[in-house]
Amino acid sequence: MKKVPEPTIRRLFCYYRCLKNDKSDIISDYICSDTLGEKIGIKPTLLRRDLSFFGHMGRKGKGYNKNKLENRLEEILGLEKEWEIALIGAGNLGKAILSYKQFREMGLYITEIFDNDLDKIGRKVNGYLVKNVRFLKKVLEDKGIKIVILAITEDDFEEITYQLKKTKIKAIWNFTTTHIDLGDNVIVIKEDLCCSLGSIICNINK
Amino acid sequence: MKKVPEPTIRRLFCYYRCLKNDKSDIISDYICSDTLGEKIGIKPTLLRRDLSFFGHMGRKGKGYNKNKLENRLEEILGLEKEWEIALIGAGNLGKAILSYKQFREMGLYITEIFDNDLDKIGRKVNGYLVKNVRFLKKVLEDKGIKIVILAITEDDFEEITYQLKKTKIKAIWNFTTTHIDLGDNVIVIKEDLCCSLGSIICNINK
Repeated sequence: MKKVPEPTIRRLFCYYRCLKNDKSDIISDYICSDTLGEKIGIKPTLLRRDLSFFGHMGRKGKGYNKNKLENRLEEILGLEKEWEIALIGAGNLGKAILSYKQFREMGLYITEIFDNDLDKIGRKVNGYLVKNVRFLKKVLEDKGIKIVILAITEDDFEEITYQLKKTKIKAIWNFTTTHIDLGDNVIVIKEDLCCSLGSIICNINK
Repeated sequence: MKKVPEPTIRRLFCYYRCLKNDKSDIISDYICSDTLGEKIGIKPTLLRRDLSFFGHMGRKGKGYNKNKLENRLEEILGLEKEWEIALIGAGNLGKAILSYKQFREMGLYITEIFDNDLDKIGRKVNGYLVKNVRFLKKVLEDKGIKIVILAITEDDFEEITYQLKKTKIKAIWNFTTTHIDLGDNVIVIKEDLCCSLGSIICNINK
């Protein structure tokens, strides 16, 4: 299989979510790329190109079998099982991420929260106890958690990274603006909100 | 000039922020692509390719003049002036966005907050009064605000979109998972957190 580009993977997730959540059309087992694309604001040509990475999934004149496509996407995206995730940072951003119910709908569960702020440690946020980040390694190993969301401020970056380096995690979703490198075996996806807002400004300014 | 791809624009913002914030090297007026790239975790070849969209900015053997590059990027990105932005949604996500100080450092100011929840309207969040979204059109026109951040839940989507359609905004930064279309003149950038987390799962699962 050709290497699947990152933007395609992101869109696959949108197709999957739409198929999973929108069961309004109970008459037909099939959906065409025009209809699916329109629901999520993606051009049908792009949708067909994205899906073509994974072989011939559609039937000419009929479209895609909804159940089959949903199951295939679930498998491609690794969503046939549930995932436990740890969150570091119990501030405003952490709370917002924690209360984002769409994650749970996809089988992605934030089950542990850590912070290095003594005012936050020991308190409950959305029903979860905030643990001291010093116990990160132990808790993650005990629970087998491999994914960490980093929602801290830049001031805490050094201390938290020190704790992260001790763990055997596989991926970090980094909401800070600071670059983090934990070696080739750890996937880092940067969620740089400044760049997103910046790109809007740049597009308006053109 | 060739059309500049969206990922390049996002990275330009990273280069700009790094040059603006990191004034630690006071000895040299120049910075090479290796050094700048390393600071932000971007390969120097990619950095050079990104900057090459805008003509020859570097000097062979010396690198980029830091001040000139910063000023040129500021101009390209539209950051030579300050921007006022409105936020719709005074919940957890709205509060997180509001307290994200990096926006202000870049000259991007959230100056108005709206909600449709009567419990939130009239209260203050981070010192800002939460206004009724019914006044969106009037306030945005009075203040000349052209950019809106949409940090609401799916339940409120329909009502808020109704109010948005009355305005003359130029761009929306959409944090909901729902597709929004306000015609060709309104830029919509979708910040789909589910897709980001989903792409991490998919990458781990490979």
